Parts: sequence; structure tokens; C-alpha cells
Amino acid sequence: MKLKNKHFYSTTDFSQAELGHLVELALKMKHQGYDQSLKGKSLVTLFLNPSLRTRLSFSAAMAKLGGDVFDLPADGSYTLEFKDGVKMDDSTKEHIKEAAKVTSRYTDAIAIRASQLVTNSDSTAETGSWDELKKDQVFKGFMKHASVPIINMESNVYHPCQGLGDAVTIKEKIKQPQGKKYVLTWAYHPKALPMATPHSEVLSAINLGMNVTVAHPQGWELDPEIIKTMKSKAQAAGGSLEFSHDQATAVKDAQVVCAKSWGALQYYGQWDQETVAKKELKHWIVDQKLMDKTNNAYFMHCLPIRRNVIATDEVLDGPNSIIVDQAENRMWAQMAILASLIGDQDD
Amino acid sequence: MKLKNKHFYSTTDFSQAELGHLVELALKMKHQGYDQSLKGKSLVTLFLNPSLRTRLSFSAAMAKLGGDVFDLPADGSYTLEFKDGVKMDDSTKEHIKEAAKVTSRYTDAIAIRASQLVTNSDSTAETGSWDELKKDQVFKGFMKHASVPIINMESNVYHPCQGLGDAVTIKEKIKQPQGKKYVLTWAYHPKALPMATPHSEVLSAINLGMNVTVAHPQGWELDPEIIKTMKSKAQAAGGSLEFSHDQATAVKDAQVVCAKSWGALQYYGQWDQETVAKKELKHWIVDQKLMDKTNNAYFMHCLPIRRNVIATDEVLDGPNSIIVDQAENRMWAQMAILASLIGDQDD
Amino acid sequence: MKLKNKHFYSTTDFSQAELGHLVELALKMKHQGYDQSLKGKSLVTLFLNPSLRTRLSFSAAMAKLGGDVFDLPADGSYTLEFKDGVKMDDSTKEHIKEAAKVTSRYTDAIAIRASQLVTNSDSTAETGSWDELKKDQVFKGFMKHASVPIINMESNVYHPCQGLGDAVTIKEKIKQPQGKKYVLTWAYHPKALPMATPHSEVLSAINLGMNVTVAHPQGWELDPEIIKTMKSKAQAAGGSLEFSHDQATAVKDAQVVCAKSWGALQYYGQWDQETVAKKELKHWIVDQKLMDKTNNAYFMHCLPIRRNVIATDEVLDGPNSIIVDQAENRMWAQMAILASLIGDQDD
Repeated sequence: MKLKNKHFYSTTDFSQAELGHLVELALKMKHQGYDQSLKGKSLVTLFLNPSLRTRLSFSAAMAKLGGDVFDLPADGSYTLEFKDGVKMDDSTKEHIKEAAKVTSRYTDAIAIRASQLVTNSDSTAETGSWDELKKDQVFKGFMKHASVPIINMESNVYHPCQGLGDAVTIKEKIKQPQGKKYVLTWAYHPKALPMATPHSEVLSAINLGMNVTVAHPQGWELDPEIIKTMKSKAQAAGGSLEFSHDQATAVKDAQVVCAKSWGALQYYGQWDQETVAKKELKHWIVDQKLMDKTNNAYFMHCLPIRRNVIATDEVLDGPNSIIVDQAENRMWAQMAILASLIGDQDD
Repeated sequence: MKLKNKHFYSTTDFSQAELGHLVELALKMKHQGYDQSLKGKSLVTLFLNPSLRTRLSFSAAMAKLGGDVFDLPADGSYTLEFKDGVKMDDSTKEHIKEAAKVTSRYTDAIAIRASQLVTNSDSTAETGSWDELKKDQVFKGFMKHASVPIINMESNVYHPCQGLGDAVTIKEKIKQPQGKKYVLTWAYHPKALPMATPHSEVLSAINLGMNVTVAHPQGWELDPEIIKTMKSKAQAAGGSLEFSHDQATAVKDAQVVCAKSWGALQYYGQWDQETVAKKELKHWIVDQKLMDKTNNAYFMHCLPIRRNVIATDEVLDGPNSIIVDQAENRMWAQMAILASLIGDQDD
Repeated sequence: MKLKNKHFYSTTDFSQAELGHLVELALKMKHQGYDQSLKGKSLVTLFLNPSLRTRLSFSAAMAKLGGDVFDLPADGSYTLEFKDGVKMDDSTKEHIKEAAKVTSRYTDAIAIRASQLVTNSDSTAETGSWDELKKDQVFKGFMKHASVPIINMESNVYHPCQGLGDAVTIKEKIKQPQGKKYVLTWAYHPKALPMATPHSEVLSAINLGMNVTVAHPQGWELDPEIIKTMKSKAQAAGGSLEFSHDQATAVKDAQVVCAKSWGALQYYGQWDQETVAKKELKHWIVDQKLMDKTNNAYFMHCLPIRRNVIATDEVLDGPNSIIVDQAENRMWAQMAILASLIGDQDD
């Protein structure tokens, strides 16, 4: 596996074999142990959005492997310029060229969280258009200019560490996921959330060869271009991909139900309108009645989760809820990623 | 001593023998050395209030024992929900259940500072009632749901690491504190401060078998329920507990004078009224004239201290001031706590 | 070399031989390797201003040498009082005496960035007078009361780590800098920037025995007192120091051109007036035409740099631009400083 020095921007940049290797490595590290393969190595983290799991699981992952984390506080650095050739006489203070090149001299990898919808919808309804956000310019800029691997801790489009962590969890719970039914269901949430996580979660289930159904209300489609990728990958992996607007029918025979809310593409920049339209959709919640329709499915969610909004206490605290294991496996997945990208030994 | 895996929420949860063991362990580590018993272990810290000593002394304690600290910045994470069964469709984003359980998967202990009076009185006069704050819901929530030890770095009610650090200092300076006189005196301060520190400081002196006098103006009583605990512990430890409204009389024969300001329970939520009432109390300051009435007493304060308000420069810079040693001993006390709670060897 | 336990406040506190030793040690560490001479040692960092390079390069430097960094977030600690004898009944919460003494008990060195012009000009046009800022009271206070070395990560007056890093870079690129021409040129920038960096950069070039020319518009003179020091040091080092108001003439025969903007002393506290006066000075930019007048000079800048304002893309991306190496060498210079100040072995 030649993963050394690659960027980890999206799972779609890796072959099914490579992702399978990372999943196995994560499970091997978790259940059989690991060595300090990152001794003397470091990771710079840059969080432009809140985080609990991602921050702590990357800190823990590096520490377990013997390496160091240097955090660059978002509000303690300089506003970055991403455009080439611009005269920087306004508010941006440092060009991505210098920021990426210089940071690369101090560390072995740079992990970034930059989800602009989260940032903006917190403070204002105005956001860039989806077409603009889809460019993931923070990541593209760092990947172009850095001389060390860039790790995506959630961009506008992808959350590959969540995706890989979910794959580790599914593989751990269902030894042979190939051909099993996985349902990702949209859920109501008072705010418009990004699509990075559902994109990467569905891609991961597809990559495991599962039969995937995505359930969501009409108008809440995932990104069409990524759906196209999902379809071709499903075919290649020997699984399937379907879409449904009926949650109850969709979950039938499912062995995994993963819940996630996201904002509708058609309302980008007009979230007030989405709020109005969403009022009719509060029944999109995962409760025990819904889970009873499944084939004794595991319940998954990326966390944080709003209890009794996305899913009920009964489901979350029930025996089939594997959300805490799922969160823990972020750490093991990231250990596999870090060891493979910047470790010295040949994995 | 079976301290392994216990929470360190309040010194009152530990026997006199257990606390004595921790004090001796701290002094042994300080004067005879220590080994890297926390190699491969980590501590998550969460500060909801400002800190200098606590942050640095926990960082130093973990580093000296070979472990790692992962800090979770308060403003970089999610607003927590503490109530059970609530429909989370408002401002809270993550339930304590998930936050505590998930964090436990990434680390060996979680240390928290959450003193709501400090937070609130900084920005607004409105605070919860004392009855509400006394519940220490942040700590109770973490202790209920975490699977690793929770360490209290200052709650609304207790500051046990300050208490233990003070005990280490008293034991270091006065080899046989049993029966010696310890005075905690209230002091004027422009703002209303929490009672966690005086509670834990008095409890520590009592635990050493000292004869304790608490001096404060009428109306500035400590929490009545905790006073009841103090009284019964004083009796058990073979010391005594008295209260006085006269600072000058109280300090007579003292071998330790510890100063601390705190807000009056009767003014909770109406701090403007306390400010008015306190104007007459600016003479509650520790000056050399007061110290001259003691039995050559050591002067202690938890820091930070407002010079020439709580105590004069003459006292603070004088030969009997042990405030810097006291601050240093926070680190040694915490090393003893950490090694005992999460260390592998049997202490 | 007796550098152990000294403060590193300004390169002017060190002899030419001592600085030469630090430069050689940095280059030796970079090109021949280093050992973990700071194992078990720690550095507290306190940033009162934004930073990318300084934060990451100090983190990397300590990690490479086996030590730890404990960061004290500026907004997570207490407002410091610097005046002696003051009654602290206003907004300051902790005296520098306690802050410095206590912090010294937890660590082996304290590194501080406190550039008040940066802080203040960001939020308001009002700043202290230059006479007031020149006192560098944060550093003077820490150096007076700390019992461990204080390292200046940029004060109002000096940026000695930048200075030393530049010396390392010049020595690496031009083996024999003695007698070679070094030009520091002022450049236009929309905001008024501090003089700490140009002061320390010029002092470093002088210390290498170079013939130094400082080019700047009339009215943008460096601090007169420091110019006096520069002159006497230039003479002692066998080099020279000249000033010019003509950028094009100044750079003739230069082997190093270093660009930097700074605010004019005459406008301290009236930055709006500087903005007006500066409008005529936008041609003070380093472009290829200017570089063509030099003796194939290297281009240097401390970063962050505003592209096409301070220097053009053509210069920055050209073969003679050594800005990224210069930034990297901050780390090696700081490793030499840290190992010499707090390391156990005799350097």
C-alpha cells in the first residue's frame, strides 16, 4: 500500500483495497496493539469550527503513536488569502502559499477542519453558494502548496475520517457487511447542517459492498455530482444504492440505520425559508417504532446528537445503539491514517 | 489505599487516612523524586473559567509523570445539555451522556473547572440561585456518565485540589499541624467571589487536626450544610472549629493565616446590593499590624491576589508569606492525585 | 559560553561571540542532528498577539529536543498589574510578581509575545506613546520577578528570535557575510506595524559584520536610541551602517534585500494621520525591477507578507526568494537558544 505522503482529503481518492487496508489496520491496532511509530513526528491541527470528538481523537491518536500535536488556534493566527495574483491591501494578512509552505517546515502533516456552512449559519443566514463552497478552497489551497500530507477533519463536501471511522465500526460489528442493508436517514434538526458527513458516511457503506438506501424528504437530495460517484462505486463494489422519501419503508430489513440531518441545497443562502419548509418534517426522527421495522439494526450517528429531535432516548440508550463505539473508532481509524501517511514503517 | 478509578470531586469523599496518604505522597514526590508512572496515560482538561495556576500545574504534573494533556477549549466545543429526557430543539447541542461517555474513550481522566459564579458575575449580575449552583450539575453529569475519573479543578462548591495543595504546604512548613491554630479570614474584594476555595481550604485544615477559626463579617457565612460537615469532621479529627466576626481577635495565636474573599449567600443574584453593603468592609484586609497579633503565623492565599486590597505588600513580600510555595504545591498535590487515580503501580 | 539561565530579551544583551555561537549551533543542529537535550524540560508560552510561525516553531523546537510546551491562553488567564505599590481595586486581577514567580515554579522557561502596537492598532487608533511602549513593561516585569529565563517572542522594541533566525539564514546562504551588503527596505503597508522586527533584523546583519543600508521614506526613521547602538555595534563588527531615502539607489550591489514595513514614530497614537501621509508611498514595494539593481540579492521577509503590496509575486516566487527557509530557520535558531538557556549539557 503506497499511502505514504498522500493527502487524506476524501475517501474517494483511495481505492477500495486501500480503504479496506486502513479499516483492517485500525481494527488490528484496536484489538492487537500498536507501537510508537510516530515517535518524533508531529501533526499541526487547525480548527475553524467547533469540535469535541475530532480534536480529542486526533490528540489521543497522535499520543498513542508517540507523536505530538501542535494546535494553531483559529483566532490566534492570520486571515488567509486564497486567490492568486491578488493585491493584498485589504483584510487578508497571509497568503495560503506562505502559510502552507511554512507550516510544512515545522511538522509532518496538517489536519484541518473548515466547514463554512457551520461557521456562517451560526452567525448569519448569508453563506456562499453551494457551488462556491463545493470548491473547498481552504483544502485545495493547502494541498496545492503544502509539502506534507493534508488531512481533512471535515470540509464543506467531505468528512473522510468520519467515513472511515464508520467503516471500522460496521466491520467490527458486522464481520461480513457485503450485501447487508445500510440505511442513512435524514432527520429533522432546527438548524441547517452540512452534507460532508452524510456524503462520506454513504460512500463508506458503499465501499464495504453494502446495499445502501438513503431516505430523505423530497428536496433534501444529496449533492447530485457525488450521487453519481456513489452510484458508480456501488456498482463496482457489488452493492447497490437507492433513494427513498419514505423513512418507514426504507428501513425495512436494515442491519444498520445511520441518522443524520443536513440542509437542503435549494435553500443555500436562504436558510430562513428552509426553517419554514422544515416545520412539516419534525416526524423525521428515529424512534423505537421505526427501529422495530428493521432487521434488529444497529443505530449509528456521528455525534453530537440532539436527543429526542434526531433520535429518541429509547433508541439512543437502547442495546442496539453503537454511537459511543462509533465515536471511539474515530480514534483508531485516524491512527491507521496517520501511521500510513506519515509513519516510517511500511504498513 | 484504593484510590484507583475514584472521582476527585471533593476531599469530603475521602477518609482522613486517604487524604493523609495523598499529602505524604505529594511531599515524597517533591523531596525524594518520582517516576514516569503516567507514561502512555492522558488527561483531558476543560476550563469553563480563567486559570493560570490550575492550567499550568496540571500540565506540569502530567508532563513530570510522563503523561499527556489534551485541552478541550471551552469556546471550541458544543453547549452541553444536562437534563434527562429533554427534547433538544433549543440552544444545547450535545447531551452530557454522549460528551462524558465519548470523552472517556479517548483519555484516562477528565479534569474540569466550572465555577458558574465566576463566569456569570463577570458578565452580568444575574446568576442562578445558590441552591441551583450547589447542585454542581456539570460535575454530577460527568461523574454519572463518564467511565474514567473526574477531577474537580473548581466547582461551585469545592476546590479540592486547592484544599489538598494547602494541606501539603501546611504539612511541609509545620511538621505537626495537629492542634495548631489555623485562621481563615474573609477579606474585602470589589467583586463577589465563589465559596469553593474557602470551603475546601477550611476542610483541609480541619482534616489535619488543626484548631480552625473562620473570621468573617456578619452575613458572610459559609454554606450552612458544609459548616455542619466541617463541625463533625473537626470533632473526628481531634481539632476544633470556631467562627468569629472580629478579625483582630480571631488571629490571636494563629500559626497560619489564610485570606480569602467570597460573596455573601444572602445576595446571590443581587450582587449590586452586596457591593453597597461591602463598602463598610474595606478594613477587612490582612496587614502587618494584624499579622503581628499572631504567633508568627505563615500567610497563605490561593492566588490570584489583589495586592493592597486582600493583603498589603508588606505581608505579601514579608518573610512569613508562603503564597508562592503554596502555588507550587498545587502541582505536587495533583501529581499525587493523578498517580493514585490513574497510575498503574500501587501507591 | 555561559548562556545558561540568561534571559533572551534582545540580541543586544549578548556578545558577538555568543550570537555567533548560537548561529553555529543552530546550523549544526539543522545539518548534523541534535539530541533530546530538553527531555523532562518545559516551556510556558504566552501569546498576547496572533502568531503562526512563532507558535509552531517554538512547539516544534521543544518537541524536537524532547521537551514540552504549556500554552497559557491570553484570554484564559488574568489581567496583570505591573505597577508596584498599587491598590488593586480596579480591573487588574493578578500582580506580575505572583504571575512570574508562580509560573517559574511550573516550568523551565517562559516565552512571551507582547506587542502592544499590534494589539491596539487592531482595535483602536489610540495607543500608548512610543516612550511608554519602549519600556516593554511586560518583559521587564517578568524578567524582574521570574526565576527562570524569559524568552522574547516579540516585544514592542525587539524580536530577537527573528533576528537570530535571519542570521542563521544569511550564514547558511552566504557563508562569509562579513563585508557583504545587506539592505533593509521599508515597504508600504495599509496598517502601522511595530518596529521590533526591523530593529532586530538590522542588529543581526550588523552583528555578522555586513555593510548595512536602511532605506525608508523621510519621517519613518527607526528608534534614534537603537540607531545609536546599531552604529557602535557596526563599528565594532567591522561593518558599516547607512541610511537612505531612495530605495533604488540603496539596493545597488546588495547581496541581501530584506523588506519590512513599520509605523512612523511621529504618528504614534495618530495613526489616521499616518494613513493619509502614507498614501504617497505605495511605490515603496520590492519588485523585480528593483531586485535587478542588486548584486543578484536574496530576498528576505519575516512573514506574514501581503503579496503585491510589500513585494510582488514575481519576487516572492522567484529563485532568489528565501522566505520559506528563513521561516524554517526560526525553529533551528530557537532550538539553539532553548538548548543553551535551559539544556543540561554544556553547549
